[in-house]
Amino acid sequence: MKLALVGIGKIALDQHLPALKSSPDWDLAATVSRRGTVDGVEAFTDLTTMLEARSDIGAVSLCLPPVPRFDAAQAVLRAGRHLMLEKPPGATLAEVHALCNLARAQGVTIYATWHSRMAMAVGAARDWLAGRTVQEGRITWREDVRKWHPGQDWIFEAGGMGVFDPGINALSILTEILPQPVRLLSADLDYPANRQAPIAARLQFSQNIAADFDFRQQGPQTWDMEFRTDGGRMALRMGGNRLEIDGRPVQGGDDIMGEYPALYARMAALVAAGESDADLAPMVLVADAFTLGRRNIVADFHF
Amino acid sequence: MKLALVGIGKIALDQHLPALKSSPDWDLAATVSRRGTVDGVEAFTDLTTMLEARSDIGAVSLCLPPVPRFDAAQAVLRAGRHLMLEKPPGATLAEVHALCNLARAQGVTIYATWHSRMAMAVGAARDWLAGRTVQEGRITWREDVRKWHPGQDWIFEAGGMGVFDPGINALSILTEILPQPVRLLSADLDYPANRQAPIAARLQFSQNIAADFDFRQQGPQTWDMEFRTDGGRMALRMGGNRLEIDGRPVQGGDDIMGEYPALYARMAALVAAGESDADLAPMVLVADAFTLGRRNIVADFHF
Repeated sequence: MKLALVGIGKIALDQHLPALKSSPDWDLAATVSRRGTVDGVEAFTDLTTMLEARSDIGAVSLCLPPVPRFDAAQAVLRAGRHLMLEKPPGATLAEVHALCNLARAQGVTIYATWHSRMAMAVGAARDWLAGRTVQEGRITWREDVRKWHPGQDWIFEAGGMGVFDPGINALSILTEILPQPVRLLSADLDYPANRQAPIAARLQFSQNIAADFDFRQQGPQTWDMEFRTDGGRMALRMGGNRLEIDGRPVQGGDDIMGEYPALYARMAALVAAGESDADLAPMVLVADAFTLGRRNIVADFHF
Repeated sequence: MKLALVGIGKIALDQHLPALKSSPDWDLAATVSRRGTVDGVEAFTDLTTMLEARSDIGAVSLCLPPVPRFDAAQAVLRAGRHLMLEKPPGATLAEVHALCNLARAQGVTIYATWHSRMAMAVGAARDWLAGRTVQEGRITWREDVRKWHPGQDWIFEAGGMGVFDPGINALSILTEILPQPVRLLSADLDYPANRQAPIAARLQFSQNIAADFDFRQQGPQTWDMEFRTDGGRMALRMGGNRLEIDGRPVQGGDDIMGEYPALYARMAALVAAGESDADLAPMVLVADAFTLGRRNIVADFHF
């Protein structure tokens, strides 16, 4: 099946292109980007032009920041094409509800992807937690925004999500593996004095689960989740790629390149089955954190 | 049917008690409040005690602020009683999803009320807009927090909603009367330097609809919505109680005391039918405003 990739930036080059190259399902038939191109693939700078020119392309994958994503997503669905969305699927919940309604009306697939749910050990973690009761959970998600989003000022603008851009990956895993849904009880959000989105956040959830998100981590990066249950201890490390039970490694490795190939395989399966997948639970928890959060002003941040 | 009222504060005294006194459906059989009581009605200070002592009471109406509301709501549902919630139905979206799931599992009614939807002219406004296209909308919701919430510091705490406490009334009307759902495009939120919730907000929605919420209005209070459509102009004034078409008053008056009786009548109908009603659209728009909003710091506020 032919697919167009919209937004040829860092995540497209790092993850989407390698995944598409190795995909048995998808043929990258066009790109749309103001500047970026891919060797040997027809390049457009305007989405509407591409949709009109290439009626042979049945699916579009969007790798745009959340704020400009809606207009593009709406254009894709209105043109009757299947739609795959990078996380988060939009800047607001209401707009994603609107996209889901539009996809349903158009009879096409919408897939709101959460790449971290495809990390190697997430399925095994979910299976292990099933039937157990969580007594305590601790999420530590600390990475260096300068390394992963160099110079991307949009991430600290209003609606850019700040530290929730990586933090929502943790929440996408949490909402996938827990036997019972969590609620947010309180949140502390640290805003740099010169920015409109938080650079760090501490969240307290029900089930005695706490999260510590920080975008200022230098040196080793940490993407860990640790749980104490009535049936032992479990830890997911490396962003869901390594599983430990009672301190003993049982699954996983260092290869984090399997997530996007799994997303594209799932997209192909959804299109083939005529189904959609748009679970907004991680995004609801982020909206709840912004609604409920106590705001603290911290030092200016400059890339 | 017997009902207990929990939280005997300003809104309970001003609205719930008169509505219950005139209700043909409900008998106020108990109150739960730290301090407040109602003459001639058994008074409890603890919800759990009331639920255990009064198994004859089948429904509970909660008039607590949003943050402490969840634990009480959960206790009511776990005790197998029907539940009616003041607006907003919770401090977070995830907790209201959890309450809805619990009500379904328990086989009882949950009713997330939006009293402004019961204002006299809202139904007529919805009927008039049906089949018309909105070209422009302007919402002005300006009231004096010192008059309506005297000394209620919780309203400016994290999760207290600030100006969205009245603003969500406007959004509950908007989402009720529009033929097409709206999305939030941008938001400006004014936070007093000494508070954790906004005192004013300016919102821009799709369909060329803008809202101006302000909690610092002295003198005349304004709760107006004006729409220009392809079929003429419409205005809803006095919080949904007066309808004007093309500048001419066509319905309504000054009596705003019909909203809560209508809520209790609807609650009785829901219980009788074994149904629930929990439309979160107004709350989603508020969560979206907190997520997407640009924060401005303004002068300290003191009651």
